[in-house]
Amino acid sequence: MTTATPAKGYAAHSDSSPLELWNFERRAPRPDDVSIEILYCGVCHSDLHFARDDWGMASYPVIPGHEIVGRVTAVGGEVKNHQVGDLVGVGCMVDSCRQCKACNDGLENYCAEGFVMTYGSPDKHDGTLTQGGYSDKVVVSERFVVKMPDGIDLKSAAPILCAGITTYSPLKHYGVKPGHKVGVIGMGGLGHMGVKLAKALGAEVTLFTRSESKKAEAKKQGADHVVISTNDDEMAAVAETYDFMLDTVPVQHDINPYLAALKPDGTHILVGLLEPLEPAVSGANLIFRRRVLAGSLIGGMPETQEVLDFCAENGITCDVEMINIDQINEAWDRMQKGDVKYRFVIDMASLKSA
Amino acid sequence: MTTATPAKGYAAHSDSSPLELWNFERRAPRPDDVSIEILYCGVCHSDLHFARDDWGMASYPVIPGHEIVGRVTAVGGEVKNHQVGDLVGVGCMVDSCRQCKACNDGLENYCAEGFVMTYGSPDKHDGTLTQGGYSDKVVVSERFVVKMPDGIDLKSAAPILCAGITTYSPLKHYGVKPGHKVGVIGMGGLGHMGVKLAKALGAEVTLFTRSESKKAEAKKQGADHVVISTNDDEMAAVAETYDFMLDTVPVQHDINPYLAALKPDGTHILVGLLEPLEPAVSGANLIFRRRVLAGSLIGGMPETQEVLDFCAENGITCDVEMINIDQINEAWDRMQKGDVKYRFVIDMASLKSA
Repeated sequence: MTTATPAKGYAAHSDSSPLELWNFERRAPRPDDVSIEILYCGVCHSDLHFARDDWGMASYPVIPGHEIVGRVTAVGGEVKNHQVGDLVGVGCMVDSCRQCKACNDGLENYCAEGFVMTYGSPDKHDGTLTQGGYSDKVVVSERFVVKMPDGIDLKSAAPILCAGITTYSPLKHYGVKPGHKVGVIGMGGLGHMGVKLAKALGAEVTLFTRSESKKAEAKKQGADHVVISTNDDEMAAVAETYDFMLDTVPVQHDINPYLAALKPDGTHILVGLLEPLEPAVSGANLIFRRRVLAGSLIGGMPETQEVLDFCAENGITCDVEMINIDQINEAWDRMQKGDVKYRFVIDMASLKSA
Repeated sequence: MTTATPAKGYAAHSDSSPLELWNFERRAPRPDDVSIEILYCGVCHSDLHFARDDWGMASYPVIPGHEIVGRVTAVGGEVKNHQVGDLVGVGCMVDSCRQCKACNDGLENYCAEGFVMTYGSPDKHDGTLTQGGYSDKVVVSERFVVKMPDGIDLKSAAPILCAGITTYSPLKHYGVKPGHKVGVIGMGGLGHMGVKLAKALGAEVTLFTRSESKKAEAKKQGADHVVISTNDDEMAAVAETYDFMLDTVPVQHDINPYLAALKPDGTHILVGLLEPLEPAVSGANLIFRRRVLAGSLIGGMPETQEVLDFCAENGITCDVEMINIDQINEAWDRMQKGDVKYRFVIDMASLKSA
């Protein structure tokens, strides 16, 4: 198979148009490529941000989706690690420069040239725009294809490829372990995975949420404690308590009250907030307690395989609500309202009849 | 000597009054106290900020000064490490709770109760306000008294007790070593010590300054390179270059261009900026390169001794301009204009005749 193949997916054609069925072509596979029939694809808030051009970097048409689980249908002559029939995953990246220090360290997510996103990036070889996982098939270089561990539930594992690795990578990088107290801010797709992963790493976990109604739910997810972040008394009671704060909130918010909840040498990790930090961070909040404010972006390919294996070993999956592809626009509306526990996953069998 | 003793110093009596001679009493020494005749005292910008109540925490009268070098004149019955005649130093702290984790770790500067400042803090035993080093004598618990290394030039060593430890502590904490590229922002009292210390630790050092006129001077201080921070081309040329950025600027400034100059995993260390970080820090600048924004405040007592010893071993001193005590108001005016290379130090012999 060395020619482009017909494919179909749900694409946005402008920043205001709904997703709709679009027939397109997947590129002719190269020798290092794995061809994949997509079985499931998770629905990430980033998909919506990109398609609506909230980040000013959109290109159209665009098929979103970067939490892809599928089955290998063909492999190129140079492919070593995947075989036809294997169950595999593809996350947020499909290529990088492969020669900078970060790439050599297995941190393709911090590639000096910037990684090639699973959708909306120009391919490094032919310049065509990549298209994501709300589709029936995808062709990806094997370096960016991970193996789904035996026995893992494929549907609920799909979001591990973004929500899982995004929260796992900083917890591992900063050495979260038994004895540590970890706060997780926000309980959406990332936050609920953060709670599960920090617990599995042995930490005592506190979920911070604005909503009293999420208390029982957070405990069910494994949180040891819940703090209502809008309650000044509850926040004051946890001053200087935590070793790490995993901040999954993707919209502007005041991080100073959370910094105050860190011990000396504590670390506040931003994984979702790309905007200017407003209200302004207090320099004193950092200086007087030698605190650290850090950022982290998804994770590298070796670590993406590691988090899948870790989840399989520890029985961790993402809480998902399955949808058919023709429900995607409604799902985006609900996701914007926070009305999903905690991730929509598209059953791509539904695209066959579309 | 178990009674309070008459003392004199230069005090501010309000947020707008000049420093003037004030006769006061030093407290009766306790069994763990060291009584010190002050020989030299450095002049730190914090002295002025505190006395002018820029931080809203002033009390009056206040005798500033926390870069104190002197000679021991008496020791209490429980004092083990200092003897009459010893040359000693006192920095920014004179007490702490001595029982929290930070104190037990030798990080009294991060004491859970807050450390007792050398001036303007209530004493933990009798509640009187501490008074600083622009004076003829001081009484300090031995835990907060360091030894001046043999052979060190006392005048130019005084500022090591604040400017030196403030820059040394984070460089050591973050493990700066040969092979690292370190940027130092600003060349005042802290900045010029940061350049010398980072060089002595083996790093390749770049000074960032707004002023073309400081280029030659920075090279003289040991900087390998100088970047004019207001020159966009020079800043663009050093994108993603540094492992660490030591930010000594004590007034609000945009740190985003400096974050952009850090490699992935690079760390920007704030040591002087207590105010809100405005313009706002970009979350993306942290997240996309896993960068770290950190704060650091002076250093603990063991590390304060360590930096003095390190400076003695490496022949590092602070560049100072000696003044008499009756020149202190003029010196503060000049310090505010940046007209000092790089620290005023008061020769306290001049107080004898005052």
